[in-house]
Amino acid sequence: MEVLKEKILTEGTIIGSKILKVDSFLNHQIDINLFNEIGKEFKERFSSHEITKILTVEASGIGIACIVAQHFGNIPVVFAKKHEAANLDSDTYETDVFSFTKNKTYKIRASKKYINPEDKILIIDDFLANGNASLGLVEIVRQAKAKVVGVGIVIEKAFQNGRILIENEGIKVESLAIIKSIQDSKIVFKDA
Amino acid sequence: MEVLKEKILTEGTIIGSKILKVDSFLNHQIDINLFNEIGKEFKERFSSHEITKILTVEASGIGIACIVAQHFGNIPVVFAKKHEAANLDSDTYETDVFSFTKNKTYKIRASKKYINPEDKILIIDDFLANGNASLGLVEIVRQAKAKVVGVGIVIEKAFQNGRILIENEGIKVESLAIIKSIQDSKIVFKDA
Repeated sequence: MEVLKEKILTEGTIIGSKILKVDSFLNHQIDINLFNEIGKEFKERFSSHEITKILTVEASGIGIACIVAQHFGNIPVVFAKKHEAANLDSDTYETDVFSFTKNKTYKIRASKKYINPEDKILIIDDFLANGNASLGLVEIVRQAKAKVVGVGIVIEKAFQNGRILIENEGIKVESLAIIKSIQDSKIVFKDA
Repeated sequence: MEVLKEKILTEGTIIGSKILKVDSFLNHQIDINLFNEIGKEFKERFSSHEITKILTVEASGIGIACIVAQHFGNIPVVFAKKHEAANLDSDTYETDVFSFTKNKTYKIRASKKYINPEDKILIIDDFLANGNASLGLVEIVRQAKAKVVGVGIVIEKAFQNGRILIENEGIKVESLAIIKSIQDSKIVFKDA
């Protein structure tokens, strides 16, 4: 997706050899026009699939998922919770997710009420690196006996192994910008 | 806002005398059609004001803010962070917020890059109770020497004192559903 790659090149900041900071448009300040382009693109890439619901995880995924949902006919969004919340049902699907960035394991949870066996679910997230967050969402959908239609990612780091782990589960992955490598503070994209 | 009050009455769950659970459409599962109605309504209520940016706080505010922003001409959204994030600038505006629900103080932060003195900011959040989260956002805008145009709230609990504290700062508050009281598990609305 050219407009996204352009945005990453002009506004992204690289920290070390692995971290790309895109907080001017993706995960702190949000560019709503870009999110609508992202929504259009996901709709095109999953146009042959029936999708009844979008699943993401707090916090950065929520805004993307909400705008994307409009391009799929305003289907509901569910966001899994990472943090204890007084207003979360006790009856949840849950799984552990290991974060390499933070070097710790956290739980993600979704109320059993909002994912049903008939659901055909598109998982949306901002980044795909080691794939643990996405695989956690896949696990939640499977606990609910619903179907994962695919995983839609805004920025994939292809030098980490998230994609292969998800594809090994038989799940389609669509990433709108795929970073092959970060070398000498320069981003090299793979065609996507 | 009638459609919102209707939704609260049909889908909301009351816990004790103070907590209203609306996770079927507001802060766990998200009703995108309703969010667009909410966006229209905020646009009407703030139609006479110039607004350049929407500020909210993770996590539940993000989805609302993103959809609302579309009704203000796709202006950018900034969400303040509650949790440590590897990708957050060290140069931030920050303030402490005391949560009565969790009985603890947490920090909210926003990068100095994304709130500027020229900004005219609409603060958006899902709930207004004691007002601490909204006042924390007001404080961040003021640290940035930007202007708070108003605070837009989806559900206000008028039996707690958030509104008065914000209005005492000279700030307009618009809430789309105002709950006067919760008595014997029944919600009594104030006209809004």
